[in-house]
Amino acid sequence: MSDPTAIAKGLEGIVIDTSNICLIDGNAGRLIYRGYDIHDLAAHTTFEEVAYLLWKGELPTRPQLEELQRQFSGARSIPESIISLMRNFPRDSSTLDVLRTIVSALGVGQPLQKPDIPQAITLTAKIPTIVAAFERLRRGEKPVPPRPDLGHAANYLYMLTGQVPVKEKVDAMNTYFVCLADHGLNASTFTARVVASTWSDMYSAVTAAIGALKGPLHGGTPGPVLEMLQEIGKPEKAQEWMSAQLAQGKRLMGFGHRVYRTMDPRAAILRDLASKITDKDLFQLAQEVEKTGLELLRKKNPDHANTNVEFYSCVVMHSIGLPTDMFTPSFACSRTAGWTAHVIEQAANNRLIRPRTDYAGPRDKIVMAIDKR
Amino acid sequence: MSDPTAIAKGLEGIVIDTSNICLIDGNAGRLIYRGYDIHDLAAHTTFEEVAYLLWKGELPTRPQLEELQRQFSGARSIPESIISLMRNFPRDSSTLDVLRTIVSALGVGQPLQKPDIPQAITLTAKIPTIVAAFERLRRGEKPVPPRPDLGHAANYLYMLTGQVPVKEKVDAMNTYFVCLADHGLNASTFTARVVASTWSDMYSAVTAAIGALKGPLHGGTPGPVLEMLQEIGKPEKAQEWMSAQLAQGKRLMGFGHRVYRTMDPRAAILRDLASKITDKDLFQLAQEVEKTGLELLRKKNPDHANTNVEFYSCVVMHSIGLPTDMFTPSFACSRTAGWTAHVIEQAANNRLIRPRTDYAGPRDKIVMAIDKR
Repeated sequence: MSDPTAIAKGLEGIVIDTSNICLIDGNAGRLIYRGYDIHDLAAHTTFEEVAYLLWKGELPTRPQLEELQRQFSGARSIPESIISLMRNFPRDSSTLDVLRTIVSALGVGQPLQKPDIPQAITLTAKIPTIVAAFERLRRGEKPVPPRPDLGHAANYLYMLTGQVPVKEKVDAMNTYFVCLADHGLNASTFTARVVASTWSDMYSAVTAAIGALKGPLHGGTPGPVLEMLQEIGKPEKAQEWMSAQLAQGKRLMGFGHRVYRTMDPRAAILRDLASKITDKDLFQLAQEVEKTGLELLRKKNPDHANTNVEFYSCVVMHSIGLPTDMFTPSFACSRTAGWTAHVIEQAANNRLIRPRTDYAGPRDKIVMAIDKR
Repeated sequence: MSDPTAIAKGLEGIVIDTSNICLIDGNAGRLIYRGYDIHDLAAHTTFEEVAYLLWKGELPTRPQLEELQRQFSGARSIPESIISLMRNFPRDSSTLDVLRTIVSALGVGQPLQKPDIPQAITLTAKIPTIVAAFERLRRGEKPVPPRPDLGHAANYLYMLTGQVPVKEKVDAMNTYFVCLADHGLNASTFTARVVASTWSDMYSAVTAAIGALKGPLHGGTPGPVLEMLQEIGKPEKAQEWMSAQLAQGKRLMGFGHRVYRTMDPRAAILRDLASKITDKDLFQLAQEVEKTGLELLRKKNPDHANTNVEFYSCVVMHSIGLPTDMFTPSFACSRTAGWTAHVIEQAANNRLIRPRTDYAGPRDKIVMAIDKR
């Protein structure tokens, strides 16, 4: 038991449980899902295989993968009543607000049951459909129904554009989905586990996680990185622009991570991917901004961590053709695999999550009659 | 900093931050909101005054209270589009699932802003309206619009029944709302704070909290207590029924609390209230079940805690005339004051909440080609 008199603000360093899902080794810059290094997974597996791995603890055989693909394809559609509901939301609504609401609505009328893999499959299959449908509605276009013959990444891009995407984009989307599928007890996954710890249901847990992912300190960062690159515009402007930001006490977006002291392995994978698929000028700009930002930050703090996953993921998503406000919703499409895996693990070996605060207020006030206050 | 190698399952005993909102002294059996003892507040204040206290740190003067009442009255209505949305949900849906979805829907189209008291007022005003409207819809009745001239507790009962309630019931409802308005970092309030720690918005935080409250280990308990009393039926059957439950390894509902080692002060207040408003037979039954249950539990564990807040709150709510499936939604109506107070406090002095797990899985697996798995 930890020292109950110490205050663990942000729960930094607090270990809440054992887990078999994900190892983040911040010092070595390693990320492992269920025993497999993220570099190995990104190079050799699809998102579907990784989702299976996160849920079941082992990569699927070919028949198991084919069965999962059938289950995904069968679960992707959303009812017309849900599309109608989305039509009523203002077009400038945050897609995450809409997604949070629709996932919650899908849970209405479901019996309260222990979270399980079929529910995880259902949510992981439907969330890209919801995101893509609302993106098309807000553009004034008709939602494109999912295509059962396409894989998860390809179908997502197809529902967004109405066109079967080229292999290069599908592979890039897939690598992004694999890299972002889980990351231990980040705030959204932890939120999902706290909800699940009350014996509440999978829909409640994932709805809550989406609300947490929305926060700018968590999933809400990728947009600003691209805006920063666009504002800087040219490699030779990086030094001046970034120095000015820091002089004004502003943060540089996409730098540093609470856990990774060295390199975020996902950033390395996505940088490598960006080098292949990104417009040459943008990639050169991103590299220069990365180098300049680190030089500036390390003048103040020689141990400052490298760029984080947001930095190059925004470059990759832009290169795939996703608009900025699709970045965080696309993150949600991937992370649902991790959220649901953690919810299932929490429910399997549960203890209600209930920390304390240290009360710092007064103790002996007496209620006065209202006219004497 | 706590010992990072210890595992704090359920975060029991972990202090995450200082707080000025609520003191739970489990050993002394005391509950304090912002310096005021819950007995004093329950005896002398309304829910509106307590909500003001939780948000602002001090009880209102008369003009301040009148202003808050005007704000509440002005914020209670929900748009017809929201009523239409509720009409489409199956009548046997969980009211908490509906409430979670509607609160999320109310957040769609709202700008992302730092959580504040006006938002807290809006949500605390509207949640009873949503709960009452869905309860009437599921009964096949028309929702009753809120009445601006009634106080919070009276208006809630009015919207449920369509009739202005008698003073005795209003006072009882008010006492219940005061007692349940906050209770430190219970799982739903903690969920709300984790969501807020990402800089996400008030609607996301309260939506998430509702999903956590739904869990049977948290808000979902009051129904089963009443069912237990109804199954037992008569005081002389308590011994036999409860012994049989324990012999089968089942839990007795409404007994014990992780935090209160002695008496939950809210249970004492609600027992006292029940003695005044409850049908004599039911109150005698409840007393006998309480006594018998404690005798049985203390044979095994002499230090077993007393009945908890759920035990007598179910008796009180039943006596007010609320059906069982309104118990947890009524809890939500009250706790919204605490959720929103904690969200505002979290946002004012924030650190992203991100604990860790201790990875217990394998580390060195290699991805094999799918046909070799």
